[in-house]
Amino acid sequence: MKALIDRIEKDGYVLGENILKVDTFVTHQVDAQLMEEIGQHFANALKNKGITKVVTLEAAGIAPALETAKALGVPMIFARKTKSLTMNEELLTSEVYSFTKQVTSTISISSKFLSNEDKVLIIDDFLANGQAAKGLIELCEQAGASVAGVGILIEKSFQDGRKLLEEMAVPVYSLARIGAFVDGKVQFIEADL
Amino acid sequence: MKALIDRIEKDGYVLGENILKVDTFVTHQVDAQLMEEIGQHFANALKNKGITKVVTLEAAGIAPALETAKALGVPMIFARKTKSLTMNEELLTSEVYSFTKQVTSTISISSKFLSNEDKVLIIDDFLANGQAAKGLIELCEQAGASVAGVGILIEKSFQDGRKLLEEMAVPVYSLARIGAFVDGKVQFIEADL
Repeated sequence: MKALIDRIEKDGYVLGENILKVDTFVTHQVDAQLMEEIGQHFANALKNKGITKVVTLEAAGIAPALETAKALGVPMIFARKTKSLTMNEELLTSEVYSFTKQVTSTISISSKFLSNEDKVLIIDDFLANGQAAKGLIELCEQAGASVAGVGILIEKSFQDGRKLLEEMAVPVYSLARIGAFVDGKVQFIEADL
Repeated sequence: MKALIDRIEKDGYVLGENILKVDTFVTHQVDAQLMEEIGQHFANALKNKGITKVVTLEAAGIAPALETAKALGVPMIFARKTKSLTMNEELLTSEVYSFTKQVTSTISISSKFLSNEDKVLIIDDFLANGQAAKGLIELCEQAGASVAGVGILIEKSFQDGRKLLEEMAVPVYSLARIGAFVDGKVQFIEADL
């Protein structure tokens, strides 16, 4: 997606060996207009897949997932990393290790929100090792829901996430794919959408 | 806001003495269309306030804050409850106690995103004791930014949040105000917007 790739080239910042900071428009400060364009882009490409729900993981996935759900005319569900006192019903749960935060989280979705009639599009901001997406796929599987695919804003294609998801037979749709960081610059490879 | 109040009456669920669950359309599963209407409603009412940034706290505030920011044509910033490895710069921080989660969190925003030239609209899903909004106001004050107001989806008016914010001289704009829960039903009082 050209608008996202252009923005990464303009405002992305390579930190160390393998971290791309996009905190000025995705992960901390959010460009709401860009998120709407991203949602429309995913929806245009995937509108014929019979998607009934968009699922993401709090927090940075919420903005693009919301806009994609709106463009598809379906609800968005964000999996929780912590349990609230008001979550008193049956939960779907799985374990996710975050390399950037160096903690294992139990993520959960109330089981009432997903059923075997649902066809889910998972949306997340980054795909690196694929642990978050894998955890979300496991939540869908527990509910008997099928996963139409994983929509990603920025894929670090030199890490194992895509391979892991493809081994689970889940299609990956990335708007920007990074082949390498060279001398603090991002080298893109061809994106899916 | 009639559409929100109607939806609370239809899908809200009173849990115990003072908890309203809106997890089917706000706090866990999210109605993206309703969030867009909410964003437009806040923006229409507050478009002449000179707002330059919309600020919220992850995670349930992100959806309405994003839509409000989009309608106002300004960026949205969500304060973080946990520190990421990639947040390597100077931070604005404050302490927030959550009664529903029974934990104190340090919330933070990278200081580069707020300055003394900013006029901030804070958006959150609930106003109860006002601790989250107070923490966000403190982050703005640390940056020298002014706070144009706090926009709330659902205010529990029988708790102290509004009083706390008004004592800080910050206007509160609530779309739905709950006066009491009586026999498991929500009793509304007149809303601000």
